[in-house]
Parts: sequence; structure tokens; C-alpha cells
Amino acid sequence: MIDKKGILFILSGPSGVGKGTVRKSLFEKDTDLKYSISMTTRPPREGEVDGVDYFFKTKEDFEQMIADKGMIEYAQYVGNYYGTPKAYVEEQLEAGNDVFLEIEVQGALQVKENFPEGVFVFLIPPSLEDLKNRIINRGTETEDLVHSRLQAAKEEIEMMDYYDYVVVNDQVDRAVQTVQSIVKSEHCKRERVAFEYKKALERDEK
Amino acid sequence: MIDKKGILFILSGPSGVGKGTVRKSLFEKDTDLKYSISMTTRPPREGEVDGVDYFFKTKEDFEQMIADKGMIEYAQYVGNYYGTPKAYVEEQLEAGNDVFLEIEVQGALQVKENFPEGVFVFLIPPSLEDLKNRIINRGTETEDLVHSRLQAAKEEIEMMDYYDYVVVNDQVDRAVQTVQSIVKSEHCKRERVAFEYKKALERDEK
Repeated sequence: MIDKKGILFILSGPSGVGKGTVRKSLFEKDTDLKYSISMTTRPPREGEVDGVDYFFKTKEDFEQMIADKGMIEYAQYVGNYYGTPKAYVEEQLEAGNDVFLEIEVQGALQVKENFPEGVFVFLIPPSLEDLKNRIINRGTETEDLVHSRLQAAKEEIEMMDYYDYVVVNDQVDRAVQTVQSIVKSEHCKRERVAFEYKKALERDEK
Repeated sequence: MIDKKGILFILSGPSGVGKGTVRKSLFEKDTDLKYSISMTTRPPREGEVDGVDYFFKTKEDFEQMIADKGMIEYAQYVGNYYGTPKAYVEEQLEAGNDVFLEIEVQGALQVKENFPEGVFVFLIPPSLEDLKNRIINRGTETEDLVHSRLQAAKEEIEMMDYYDYVVVNDQVDRAVQTVQSIVKSEHCKRERVAFEYKKALERDEK
């Protein structure tokens, strides 16, 4: 028996890029990934189920979790907390299961500090590519506008630098397939495979 | 227009593992990969076509290619030369096409020296895994035999260290799918994507 830890995958990207849609579509397919459900203090919306869409908690409970260092990452949006409880992620990884987080860019940076070995996937809109091509190939915009667009594009690119992969969300199905490919190929990374072999062989020598 | 170089993929592994079968099956599917045909001085076997299976050359021509530094890698087996001509690989990479080599382990190490940025995939037989489990879980073998098997397994593992990915060839279709996943995910590596974006943006600023 080889005791093999799972891999933590983090899907993030600029807001509005369609992270949630890609994640939902990925989990509709056959997958061994374990989805880590976020925790929030905002009230459930119609149809949302506690423990499925979110873990719905009071502000007091959430702040207690933070104080107890029970959150991998958290942030406040419009007066409510959102975050990822640590226990589920660690339990699943220890049990050898891959865990999948779909979170905002700020949260992803916090995860990176605690789980630098995680696999970070940055989802970008095809419009960034379009923008890039437009900026480069067309000379019709004023110089100021080109410059400010370039700046915006560059800020996106700066965020990329924290990630391992960049996936263009031009079509949901295509983006999902690419994420699946990343999961599959990460399992074949030599560091992981060789480590398991070596550990197994060393154990025998003792 | 972004000028984007192709990626060099190298499939290798212990002899007899089924590299050729995996490569053939991969190229029977729809792929954008360009297969780099090997060059040899051994005579064609029945049914083999020059420029399809191999480039068949005289010993003198092959040695001239070596002298002209026209080979990425080469080796001698049973009195014949086998190797990979440089020109095709470099032309295709420059044109933005991915190139695929299927070569012996010795050749792969030569390629690694000249193309460290290549993506190196090590194909292993499932029997190595079996062996490993057998070595560990069963105590029926003599200590000497366990030790010599461990040594053999370790020599395989040492070769792995030069590779980026390790793929178990338990089923050809499965191995092919894994190689396809590696090709796809390598194209999403942040270093590559970010580099292209940054290059495109810098070009515009000039």
C-alpha cells in the first residue's frame, strides 16, 4: 500500500469570467475530484441548500472559525464573509483524494501561502485575447485609450504570475476538458510518481 | 500576430515498454503533433517505406550528418546507426508546430542536453508497479532476490529523474489519452501563456 496524498486544485480568475459555470460543468461529469464547499454568512438564496451550495453560518460562528485558524482563506464582500474551511480539505487530501476549490483571486493568493504545492489554474476570458489583438492590430483608438487598456491587461497578467496554468474560457466544454487534462497530467508529474516509488522502495529496505 | 514556438515532446522509456505502439496509436488519432521520423543505416524491412517509417541512409551519409552536427541525437545498435535529424525538428518548432519524438532512453538524454525546454515523457510498464508491490507486500522471496529486484527497479527510477512525466502503459488507449492530456495541459502552462501575452504587449509599446 502506498500512502499517497491527494492534489489540491484551485480554479480562480477575474470575477465574471465564468468560474462557477466551469466548475458546475466539471462536476456534472464523472470526476474523482472532491469539491470543497465554501462557507458564507450571507443568507441562502431561493433554492440554495446548506451543505450543497454553501455552508451557511452566522457571523459569530464564522468569526470563531477564523479565530480558531479553521479557514484556509476568507474574505468579505458586501458585508458578508466567504471562505474555505480547512478541515474538509486536509481530511480529503490525507485520504488521497484530490480536492477542487473554486474561489476568488484574493482567496487563491491566501491558499497559495498555505498550500504552495497546490495546482493553481487561472481562467481568463477570451475577450482579454481579443483585447490584446485589438490593441496590437488596430491603430484606430486614441493613444491614451490604448495605454489604459494595456494597463488593465497587464494587471490581469500580473495575477497570472501566481498560477501554474492559464485556461481560456472561450467555450465552457473546452475549458472543462482542459481542466480535466491538467488534473490527469498533474498525476503523471515525475516528482509525484518518482516520490511514491522511492518511498515505497525505501520502506521495504528498512 | 503572435510568433509562438512549438513544443518538443519526447516519448521514451525502457526498451520493450511499447513506445512504438503508443506513438502509432497517438498518430492514428486526430493530432496537430508533427512526428519526427528517425534516420537509420539499417536496411528497410519488408513493407517499410523510406520517409515514412525511417529515412534510410548509407553509413557514409549518416556519418557525414553527425560530422556536420546535423543530428539531435544518435546511437548505434547492432552495428547500425539510429538518430534524429535536427533540421526538421527546428523548422517545425520555429513554425509554431509541436514536434513529437519517440526514441530510446540514451537518445532522450542527448536531446535533453540540446533541448532542455522539451517535455520529456517516460513510459513505464505496469509490471514495474507489480514488481514494486510484489517486493513490498510479499515476504516469500529470498533476501538476495528482493535486493537485486529492488536494484533493478531503482535503476529504472534513476532514469525517471530526467523526465517531466511518467506514464504507465497498462492499456495503450489509456496511455495515449494521458499523453494527449500532457500535450494539452503543457500548452496552458502559465510560463508559456504569460510569455506570449507579455511579448505581445511589449511589442505594442515600442
